[in-house]
Amino acid sequence: MAIIVQKFGGTSVADAEKIRRAAKRVIKAVENGFGVVVVASARGKQTDQLIADALELNPNPPKREMDQLLSTGEQQTVSLFAMALDAMGYDAISFTGSQIRMMTDSAHTMARIKSIGAERIHKQLDKGRIVIVAGFQGIDKDENITTLGRGGSDTTAVALAAALGAEECEIYTDVDGIHTSDPRIFKNAVKMDEISYDEMLELASFGAGVMHPRAIEFGKKYDVKIHVRSSSNETDGTMIIHEVPQMEGVIVSGATVKKDMAKVGLVGVDNVPGNAAKVFAHLAKAKVIVSDIIQTEISDKKANLSFMIGISDLAAAKKAVEQIKDEINCEGIFVRDDIAEVSVVGIGMRTHYGVAEKMFTALAEAKVNIDSITTSEIRISCAVDEDQAEDALKVICAAFELDKPPEQRSTSD
Amino acid sequence: MAIIVQKFGGTSVADAEKIRRAAKRVIKAVENGFGVVVVASARGKQTDQLIADALELNPNPPKREMDQLLSTGEQQTVSLFAMALDAMGYDAISFTGSQIRMMTDSAHTMARIKSIGAERIHKQLDKGRIVIVAGFQGIDKDENITTLGRGGSDTTAVALAAALGAEECEIYTDVDGIHTSDPRIFKNAVKMDEISYDEMLELASFGAGVMHPRAIEFGKKYDVKIHVRSSSNETDGTMIIHEVPQMEGVIVSGATVKKDMAKVGLVGVDNVPGNAAKVFAHLAKAKVIVSDIIQTEISDKKANLSFMIGISDLAAAKKAVEQIKDEINCEGIFVRDDIAEVSVVGIGMRTHYGVAEKMFTALAEAKVNIDSITTSEIRISCAVDEDQAEDALKVICAAFELDKPPEQRSTSD
Repeated sequence: MAIIVQKFGGTSVADAEKIRRAAKRVIKAVENGFGVVVVASARGKQTDQLIADALELNPNPPKREMDQLLSTGEQQTVSLFAMALDAMGYDAISFTGSQIRMMTDSAHTMARIKSIGAERIHKQLDKGRIVIVAGFQGIDKDENITTLGRGGSDTTAVALAAALGAEECEIYTDVDGIHTSDPRIFKNAVKMDEISYDEMLELASFGAGVMHPRAIEFGKKYDVKIHVRSSSNETDGTMIIHEVPQMEGVIVSGATVKKDMAKVGLVGVDNVPGNAAKVFAHLAKAKVIVSDIIQTEISDKKANLSFMIGISDLAAAKKAVEQIKDEINCEGIFVRDDIAEVSVVGIGMRTHYGVAEKMFTALAEAKVNIDSITTSEIRISCAVDEDQAEDALKVICAAFELDKPPEQRSTSD
Repeated sequence: MAIIVQKFGGTSVADAEKIRRAAKRVIKAVENGFGVVVVASARGKQTDQLIADALELNPNPPKREMDQLLSTGEQQTVSLFAMALDAMGYDAISFTGSQIRMMTDSAHTMARIKSIGAERIHKQLDKGRIVIVAGFQGIDKDENITTLGRGGSDTTAVALAAALGAEECEIYTDVDGIHTSDPRIFKNAVKMDEISYDEMLELASFGAGVMHPRAIEFGKKYDVKIHVRSSSNETDGTMIIHEVPQMEGVIVSGATVKKDMAKVGLVGVDNVPGNAAKVFAHLAKAKVIVSDIIQTEISDKKANLSFMIGISDLAAAKKAVEQIKDEINCEGIFVRDDIAEVSVVGIGMRTHYGVAEKMFTALAEAKVNIDSITTSEIRISCAVDEDQAEDALKVICAAFELDKPPEQRSTSD
């Protein structure tokens, strides 16, 4: 029997009516002959409520206890989901992370999956049951409950699909699929039929919020077809798959904007081996996630070093660099908290020239000043003033014709 | 290190303020040198909310899924409780039933404890930690979550105290201890300093709601000292202990009233072996809990059979006896749904005469009609009209001087 994994996020199971709607989606796949494994998140605002309850008792709750607390949200959803299916005449059984031996390391609130006990699920599917698994949670070797952090339920779903050898992992969400850009900003963005894991990783890391990068990494590693689609209609969404030759024909797949960023610069740092390492070791210790590191020499002995962070990490980052400032002979620290990053992504740009030029020209014509530029093999990102960010995204989308499906775009670039 | 188990019910942990108050109670025991294991119930109305959520999706939810759902209530409390202790500077760790291997049978929603893994708790206590255990829940041999039914957290606490060899199991509640009668009805009821397990079992079974009979049975079987006391003051409550010789001097320990009862009578049943068995087998199959069975011969060949039930079981009971009526040649069925039961309990009455007479006289003087009478070795119960029940309890309490501590009562009975 072919297996399909269906993941429903918090908004898709927020109340009884939505759980019933999701259950009907499951039943449809069952009627089509699939063995169905459902992964569900906590209902709507349940997690927020539990976090508020915790903070009322302890401004800095122990992470183990936080995981013990938050994991109840998903446990509630899966039992309710199984009840809904039972009421519709279908045999269903719910499992916690513990019950399916979703083994993780002990990094509470951000644990990594180590192994999954697929046998118990196979056994239930073989009995003709629908299996409902609590997303986001696992246990460590001492049976402590762990959670996987942001995007955890996506990761659970993709990992389960890999462990079960599922045909496909369907991620149900409130949009039709992955779009060429954010439709809230660039109204004419079009849905992509397919996208490669690598492109999706770049898009997700640089502002496209539909899926968490970790789940995509997992899918790439274990070769899981991921289908991102709408929970409110039957339209096909976007398939995230391995790169196929024809993808190279699409030069730019999508464009993103990432807001709420800050930039920290260290001016005139002694340019000796080890200084950069010291800076980033300090930032890691302060749990600051850093992107877009740029270092440039300004003299024989001095260099400037800058990096981007989420604005919520700014206080911690400032503290960390202040502590290291003297040790690396840094002449000054500057901070920008009014910055955003626009990016274009596409595996086609590896073999095409002119993408950077087209992007910079579009920004220049719109009088958007570029603060700094970073690139990967399949991405170009520009830091810009936050209040110009949406305009910047719009002109980039227009320049790369992201309002059209790939085959209708001009190929002059 | 001497261990103490402290159990806090749902009202004692209903909100952050109450959890903090309970945590202070725990800390006090820690400061007194005890290793403390806390057993906590779901917060306030959480369980009711979860039941409502379930019924919205399924009027008859599968019991396994119901247990999976309801067990989250206690899991939330214990993690929050551990966070509260952490905020007060004390090292605490919370456990689910699964995590301490609280093994039960597979009777979902009314499981029985089979064994407890005490090692994990001992290990944590040895590290100087306070251990917080989710009450009411366990797992069966296939890791399915089970719940223990009504009074489940009391049972968890007493069972843990037994497994850990605890000095004492403290049951925190909203009353000062066990009273000679219900103070809401008989205002002058006095708190008992101690009571035997057997008396407490009868009192609990016949209307005293403070503790569930199962927990008391467990305490008796495993020799656990149970201390029922108030969560809002420091006064000693009531110790439930094994019978000691001086207890015999107290003829009647307490009096109870049990309302919302119904009586079902089967008139003119063929008095042949096996007929009573057939009736109660049918009732058991319908999950009706029966008490006070009375059978009396009315002729050589015919007998009347009656029993009491909770009013909520009346519809099921009526249906069950209707089904069996013809098979046992029953001439008629009568039902009373306006009945209550008043009882007096005391191990002293085993060796004293006159208790029954005093009770019946008191009821007669108050013009309370007695519908039927049943007795055990240490209890006499009278079924009375429900609207006379409170008056009946008052006159019985007065007759047995339950407004005074035992040593001040006259010994004329």
